[in-house]
Amino acid sequence: MTKGSMLSWVDGANEPHGFGLNHLPYGAFRKDDVTRLCVRIGDWLLDLEACVRHGLLEGFAPSVRDACSQSTLNDLLAAGPEAWQALRAVLTACLSDDGYARTAADWLLVPLSEVELVLPIDPRGYTDFYASLHHARRVGELFRPDNPLLPNYKHVPIAYNGRASSVIASGTSVRRPWGQRRPANQETQPTFEPSAALDYELELAFVVGQGNALGEPISIANAHEHLFGVTLLNDWSARDVQAWEYQPLGPFLGKSFATSVSPWITPMAALESFRVAPAARAQGDPQPLPYLLDDADQQHGAFDIQVEVLLSTEASRAAGLAPMPVSRGNARGLYWTAAQMVAHHTSNGCNLRPGDLLATGTISGPERASAGCLLELTRNGAESIALPNGEHRAWLQDGDEVSLRALCRREGFLLIELGECVGHISEA
Amino acid sequence: MTKGSMLSWVDGANEPHGFGLNHLPYGAFRKDDVTRLCVRIGDWLLDLEACVRHGLLEGFAPSVRDACSQSTLNDLLAAGPEAWQALRAVLTACLSDDGYARTAADWLLVPLSEVELVLPIDPRGYTDFYASLHHARRVGELFRPDNPLLPNYKHVPIAYNGRASSVIASGTSVRRPWGQRRPANQETQPTFEPSAALDYELELAFVVGQGNALGEPISIANAHEHLFGVTLLNDWSARDVQAWEYQPLGPFLGKSFATSVSPWITPMAALESFRVAPAARAQGDPQPLPYLLDDADQQHGAFDIQVEVLLSTEASRAAGLAPMPVSRGNARGLYWTAAQMVAHHTSNGCNLRPGDLLATGTISGPERASAGCLLELTRNGAESIALPNGEHRAWLQDGDEVSLRALCRREGFLLIELGECVGHISEA
Repeated sequence: MTKGSMLSWVDGANEPHGFGLNHLPYGAFRKDDVTRLCVRIGDWLLDLEACVRHGLLEGFAPSVRDACSQSTLNDLLAAGPEAWQALRAVLTACLSDDGYARTAADWLLVPLSEVELVLPIDPRGYTDFYASLHHARRVGELFRPDNPLLPNYKHVPIAYNGRASSVIASGTSVRRPWGQRRPANQETQPTFEPSAALDYELELAFVVGQGNALGEPISIANAHEHLFGVTLLNDWSARDVQAWEYQPLGPFLGKSFATSVSPWITPMAALESFRVAPAARAQGDPQPLPYLLDDADQQHGAFDIQVEVLLSTEASRAAGLAPMPVSRGNARGLYWTAAQMVAHHTSNGCNLRPGDLLATGTISGPERASAGCLLELTRNGAESIALPNGEHRAWLQDGDEVSLRALCRREGFLLIELGECVGHISEA
Repeated sequence: MTKGSMLSWVDGANEPHGFGLNHLPYGAFRKDDVTRLCVRIGDWLLDLEACVRHGLLEGFAPSVRDACSQSTLNDLLAAGPEAWQALRAVLTACLSDDGYARTAADWLLVPLSEVELVLPIDPRGYTDFYASLHHARRVGELFRPDNPLLPNYKHVPIAYNGRASSVIASGTSVRRPWGQRRPANQETQPTFEPSAALDYELELAFVVGQGNALGEPISIANAHEHLFGVTLLNDWSARDVQAWEYQPLGPFLGKSFATSVSPWITPMAALESFRVAPAARAQGDPQPLPYLLDDADQQHGAFDIQVEVLLSTEASRAAGLAPMPVSRGNARGLYWTAAQMVAHHTSNGCNLRPGDLLATGTISGPERASAGCLLELTRNGAESIALPNGEHRAWLQDGDEVSLRALCRREGFLLIELGECVGHISEA
């Protein structure tokens, strides 16, 4: 038996599929026109409202039971880390072989195949960081060959406010956006037409649990108490629109048409075994300023999460091919940690709220194959990449389907797979 | 009697104070620990929940009556332009000399002096445009003397996503933010300390009423149906933080510590008499692209709203002086109209939601005295301005209080004053 693992009585739950008893990600499902919260185990959902109704959560404060009966996780996120920990303990016990509630819980399971998964959070804010040095440098090389990395990068966890209204659940189609594009010849008018440079961005997003009051920063030492979980996020980007609009105030319409997230939020508690030290700084790199520096964070503030992008096309699906790998990386190489993001974001007093998404920005590694977006892989569309089925892509085409996947794998520990984040490009 | 005006029976309501029967801005007030919606007339509030309770809104759909009984305007915003128009007609009748409900309404008024005003909307999104050409050019001259206006400016209504969580009501103190500042000498570490370059920005914000579904742009011809009202907005800015952080993804912590808005939302219906043609384009300026071009918008898509900034300091208040004017301009000179902002924002399919704020960006005129922020007035702090009481300011100091005011004045029409937007700087 694997170290630290328990077995579950749920059918198939102990297979190495990444959704075992050690994981229990939170989600929301629709069935019979009702939306309810759940945790996933194997190919089953444990219905949290039913848990409340059947008295499994009697030991909890009414506010927590009420939070479990809502249609989004936001109230549970606001309940704070003690409530999350206690709930996870009870749900784990209930699903384990020693579960005190096997008989009751048997009634509480819903087959994954029978439901529609929906966005489990109502994100009020969506912040996108730029935490991969390799991404920042490679993008910088395209646009500023002489000065790829700006002087602030190694001091400031750079970020911008994304658009929260267009955050959508995995599986929702993404319509190719229209937009203004830079005139090829400076003397002509720009054009307004469907983007011809549609891209994905492979990211993780940390989900804020308890927020902070306006004017009261969260110290880096306390940051972890404010993070509930992590999910995969695809920050779809129209590179032609972005290139023409982004000076001087940053990305806007090149991003705000859609941002897809996985329907599953993996609790931070499930990732404790996959914490690692952040990537070592290079010789001569500056020490982070004190408000971004914490011993524990330096020791295990990063996460060993393998991430990958797969692409299927109309042709590949017609040929019966599985989604084709396009790039593969690991979140442990990010320059900034989740705790540094929280501390920086709130350092000016800005308030975070439950359900806010703090995304990493594109996760790219040092090798070109580990670049997390086509902008890098194709050098801004100049060098199209060959897909395993013989097709080529400079940018995404209509009918393409992009899947983000993520695995936590470590000798002696049960595998964890983050919920897949899928989006299908439909025509403008 | 002034053209088109009616008289109100409410005490003092017919004085030329800008809050007459022709205005009726919406707000929210707290009294006895309850928050309720209202419209303002003179120094009185008409309590909308009480109107519902006393049967004044019997002709309305239950959803509208319910919307009037909430603690924010969001549901009423979502109800759409026909509901707004009908409600305004009934409230106007109720408060006019011919009011059918004078006796009942007499019970429904609350003195302004007895309540606390709170934010009447729950903004899910806050977008800040850059609609003043004069602002963009003057700021550009400071940082790019050879190339002050970027090539996209006259084609693209430039904007960025602001931070909605820190939008606060007028009167809430603004704590000076801490932040990273650019090293004076590139070889030293940046510092983290309270901002030494705190600024205001004089802006209007249009409040979105009905939103749009993701993927369904709002045409410029229909844009006005989606705007409920307008309010004053102060986009507080820490210029030193902003200068160091904003490349390449735009403003973030330099702005997100606080954004103040007036407690009063002036309905667009009250501003119809103050519509004017947008500022004429200069010789050689490009024609807007078709999605930004509409005949009606070209004829009267701008608003003749005089805006001004007043400053009081600890010393000026101690001397019993009134707030001192610092700058004065007019929103009619903006390069982009509200309808163009809506059409552009949604042109890629991005969805707007009820209560979203679309702010103009700093409203600056061609003369330096009409610049709407200290960054322009003091040339990035290099030339401090003299206040009427003999003090000088390069940037805001602790204890300073900034008031934004706005007036609509037109021969033959009753004055309208937008609700004041005030913020007091407290120490870091």
